[in-house]
Amino acid sequence: MARELHLNLFIHGRGHHEVAWRHPDSAQRAPTDLAHYRDLALAAEAAKLDSVFFADHVALGQDLGYAARGELEPLTLLGALAAVTQRIGLIATASTTYSEPYNLARQFASLDHLSGGRIGWNIVTSWAPAAAANFGQEHQAGIDQRYERAHEFVEVVSKLWDSWAKDAIRDDREAGVYAHADLIQRTEHRGKHFAVAGALNVPRSPQGRPVFVQAGASTDGRAFAARYAEAIFTAHLQKESAITFYSDIKTQARALGRRPDQIVILPGISAAIGSTEAEAQRVWEELNELAHPSVGLSRLSNRFGGHDFSHLKLDQVLSADDFPDPSQVEASRSRAQLITAYVARERPTLRRLLHSLAGARGHFTATGTPEQIADIIEDWFVSGAADGFNVMPPILPTQFTVFTEEVVPLLRKRGLFRSEYRDGTLRDRLGLDPVPSRFDSPTQEQRSA
Amino acid sequence: MARELHLNLFIHGRGHHEVAWRHPDSAQRAPTDLAHYRDLALAAEAAKLDSVFFADHVALGQDLGYAARGELEPLTLLGALAAVTQRIGLIATASTTYSEPYNLARQFASLDHLSGGRIGWNIVTSWAPAAAANFGQEHQAGIDQRYERAHEFVEVVSKLWDSWAKDAIRDDREAGVYAHADLIQRTEHRGKHFAVAGALNVPRSPQGRPVFVQAGASTDGRAFAARYAEAIFTAHLQKESAITFYSDIKTQARALGRRPDQIVILPGISAAIGSTEAEAQRVWEELNELAHPSVGLSRLSNRFGGHDFSHLKLDQVLSADDFPDPSQVEASRSRAQLITAYVARERPTLRRLLHSLAGARGHFTATGTPEQIADIIEDWFVSGAADGFNVMPPILPTQFTVFTEEVVPLLRKRGLFRSEYRDGTLRDRLGLDPVPSRFDSPTQEQRSA
Ligand SMILES: Cc1cc2nc3c(=O)[nH]c(=O)nc-3n(C[C@H](O)[C@H](O)[C@H](O)COP(=O)(O)O)c2cc1C
Ligand SMILES: Cc1cc2nc3c(=O)[nH]c(=O)nc-3n(C[C@H](O)[C@H](O)[C@H](O)COP(=O)(O)O)c2cc1C
Repeated sequence: MARELHLNLFIHGRGHHEVAWRHPDSAQRAPTDLAHYRDLALAAEAAKLDSVFFADHVALGQDLGYAARGELEPLTLLGALAAVTQRIGLIATASTTYSEPYNLARQFASLDHLSGGRIGWNIVTSWAPAAAANFGQEHQAGIDQRYERAHEFVEVVSKLWDSWAKDAIRDDREAGVYAHADLIQRTEHRGKHFAVAGALNVPRSPQGRPVFVQAGASTDGRAFAARYAEAIFTAHLQKESAITFYSDIKTQARALGRRPDQIVILPGISAAIGSTEAEAQRVWEELNELAHPSVGLSRLSNRFGGHDFSHLKLDQVLSADDFPDPSQVEASRSRAQLITAYVARERPTLRRLLHSLAGARGHFTATGTPEQIADIIEDWFVSGAADGFNVMPPILPTQFTVFTEEVVPLLRKRGLFRSEYRDGTLRDRLGLDPVPSRFDSPTQEQRSA
Repeated sequence: MARELHLNLFIHGRGHHEVAWRHPDSAQRAPTDLAHYRDLALAAEAAKLDSVFFADHVALGQDLGYAARGELEPLTLLGALAAVTQRIGLIATASTTYSEPYNLARQFASLDHLSGGRIGWNIVTSWAPAAAANFGQEHQAGIDQRYERAHEFVEVVSKLWDSWAKDAIRDDREAGVYAHADLIQRTEHRGKHFAVAGALNVPRSPQGRPVFVQAGASTDGRAFAARYAEAIFTAHLQKESAITFYSDIKTQARALGRRPDQIVILPGISAAIGSTEAEAQRVWEELNELAHPSVGLSRLSNRFGGHDFSHLKLDQVLSADDFPDPSQVEASRSRAQLITAYVARERPTLRRLLHSLAGARGHFTATGTPEQIADIIEDWFVSGAADGFNVMPPILPTQFTVFTEEVVPLLRKRGLFRSEYRDGTLRDRLGLDPVPSRFDSPTQEQRSA
C-alpha cells in the first residue's frame, strides 16, 4: 500500500498567530463557545482530515490584558465534539504531571466509547512552570523527573485500559450473566509514583485505548516518543531540522523493536494562503503589524523558564550568545533548543525572531498560493521530513477554509490525500496495528474458573 | 410565587432495579452507548424535567459476573449531552476525595460554558472503600476526614470559579485589549489539604459555577449540605424519615443564615407504574424474581464497609441487633443508618429487606397506577417531605416513558409542574439566587491600575 498523507487540524482559539483574535477575518465568536469548535470540526470532517487536536495547559498564561486567554478544557470539549461529529478523529492533550492515572484512564476510555473509537491522547508533561503552583507544588519538577513520572503514568493507564477483555461482557439476560468475571482483571500496579489496584470501571473501548500522541522533543521527550508515541506533533522552523528529527525518531523506534511506520510524524505548518503570493504576504504582514513586541518578548522569556531578555533591542542582530544554554532549561527545553539553533543559523534581528514566533510559536510558517503550499507539503512528505502535517492556520476559521477549499483538492489531484473516509477507528486511519490485550492468548488458568 | 415542584431524572444503566439489565423491557443498548443516554436526556427534556443526573464511583463494583458494571465517566458524558440537548439541566457526580481541585474546577467551568449554564455538581466524598486503592491509598479515609477535605475542596474550587469577573473579557480588536487584567484574580489558597495559586484558565461560566448538589446524609454529610448544597438528593424508605430529614436540613441551613428555599430537597422515588395496581405489582415481582439474594447480601455487606451477613437466613425476621452499629460505619454511613432504622421499625425478613434494597438501593419504592404515583408525589410535596423528586425508574427507558406520558400530565393538571421551560440557567430554574462574585463591589484599588 502506498504511503498515505495524514492531516490534523490543530484548533487554537481564533488562529495560531498570536494576534489572530484581533484580525478582522478571525471568528467573531467567543473562545468559550462550543459552536466555534463544532463548526471547525465539521469543516475538517467534510474535508476528510484525519483528526482535530487541542493543546492544554493547566495554568492561566501571561499577558492577560492583551492575549486571548481562557478556553475550554479539552476532555469535556471532546465529549461534546464526539456527539456532533461522525468520523473525524479527536485528540486532546492531557498532562501526566498533574493528573491521576485512574481518573484520566476513565475519561479517555469513556471518550473512546462516546466517539466510537476516534480518540487520541497527546501525552505531555506540561512545560509551563506556573502549573506547579496550582497543584500544591512549590516548584516545577525538572524535565527528567517529569518524564520519569510520564513513563510510569503511561504504564499504569495502559494496564488500566487492559482491564477488560474485548469479549468480557456477555449480557446474557436469560442466564443472568452480565460479564465473564475472569475476563476482567485487576491492575495491581505498585511503582515509584503510583499504586493502583484497578480494575478500571469502564469496559474496554473500541480502540482498546486512545491513540498515543506525543509532542515533546527534548532528549527525554524523544526517547519517550520513540517508545510510546503512535503519532508525533513536532515544531520545526525549517525543513532540515524536521528531516533530522524524523530520522532520529524512526531510528530510535527501530532500535526499540518498533516498526517505523507505527509512528506517524506530523510537523506543524502555519500557512498564510492567498490567491497570489502578494495577497498571502499581505495577510502575514497585517498580522505582524498587530503584534506587540513586548508580548513576544515575554512569551520568549516564558519558554526559557523566565529568562530575562528585556535588554535586547528590536533591530539588534541576535546570536546564540544572547540566549542561556537551552539544555539547562527546565520549562520548554526542546522549543528553547529549536529557537537557539535557528538564531545561530539565521542570525535574525530580534524583531524578525519575534515575528517568526508570533506566527506559530516556533512551528514552520509559510506564505504562498495554494499551489505553493501543496508543493511544500508534498516536498516534506516525499523527502523524509513528515508523514503528514499538523495544520495550524494563522487565522481561524478563514485560513482553514482556504486550506480545505484550495489546498486539499490539489493534494487529492496529486494522489496524496484521501477523498473519502474508509470505515474504522482513528487507529485504523493512521495505519496503526491493533492494541494487544493481555487476554489475547489466555492461559488455561485464566479461561477456566 | 407558588412553590414549584422539581423533577430530576437519575439515569442509571438500564434502570435502578438491581436486575433491570435482565428484564425484557429494559434498553437493549450497551451501557457504554451514547445513544442510550442521549435518548433518555431528550425524553426528559421533552417532558420539561429540571435535569438529568449521573452517579459516580471511582472503583469497579463487585459481583462482576452478575451485575451490570462498567459505565461511562460522567463529566465526559455530560460534555456529549451538552451538545445534543438544549434546555435541560445536566448534573454529574464527582468526588472531592479523589480529584484535584484545579482539574475539576476547569472541567465543570468548561461544561457550564458548553451547556450554556445548565450544569450541576453532585459533591460526594466517595463512600466505596475500594476507591482508595486506585489512588495509592492503603485505606479509605474516615468519614470525618473525607468531609474535612470536602469542605476545603469546595472552598478552593469556589475561589477558582471566582477568578474572572463576568465582564473581564473586553475582546476589543481595535485597541488590542482582550481582557481587563485586573478583573482576573489569583486564588492564593493555602490550606491543610490544598495549595492552589490560580487563577483558573477558564473564564467565568454562565452560572458563575455549577449548581451545588449533595447526596450524603450522615451527620457530617448533613452539616456539609446545610452549608453548601443548593439541591439535595436523598434516600428514604418511608415518608416519615423524609420529613425529619427535610426539616433538619432546612433548620440547619437557617441557623447558618441561609434562606430555606435556597436548598431544593429531592428524595428518590423508584416507582413501578402500571395501568392497574395489579399490573404495576406484576412488574415489581418480575424484577424481584430475577434478583439473586447472594448478590443482594454482598451489596448490603459493602454498604456496611464489608461486614459479614452470610450467617443470616432468607426467611429470618431481622432486628437491629443483626447489624453493626451504623454510626461506626466509615463507608456508606447514612445508608447504613437508614437500613438499620428501617429494620428496627418494620422487622422485615431478610428476603423482604433485600427485595426492598434491590429496587433502588434504599430509596423509596412504590408500585401503582399513574394516579397513585402522582398522589404520592403531591402528598410528599405538600407535607414537608420534598421540594420535588429524584425520579429513579426501576426499568429504563420503559418505566420512564410511562412516567413522562402518564404521571407528568397529571402533575400538570394539578398545577404542580411546568408545561414549558422558561428562559434561564439551571440555577434560575431551581429558584436559586445568583452566585456572588468578588468583583461585584470592587474597591477603588481593583478597578484602577
Ligand atoms: C503541536 C504541539 C503541541 C503541543 N502541545 C502541548 C500542550 O498542549 N501542552 C504542553 O504542556 N506541551 C505541549 N507541547 C510540548 C511543548 O510545546 C514543548 O515541546 C515542550 O518543550 C515540551 O517538550 P520537552 O519537555 O520534551 O521539551 C506541544 C508541542 C507541539 C509540537
Ligand atoms: C441519589 C443519590 C446519589 C448518590 N450518588 C453517589 C455517588 O454517585 N457516589 C458516591 O460516592 N456517593 C453517592 N451518594 C451518597 C451515598 O450513596 C451515601 O449517601 C453515602 O452514605 C455517603 O454519604 P455519607 O457519607 O454522608 O453517609 C448518593 C446518594 C444519593 C441519595
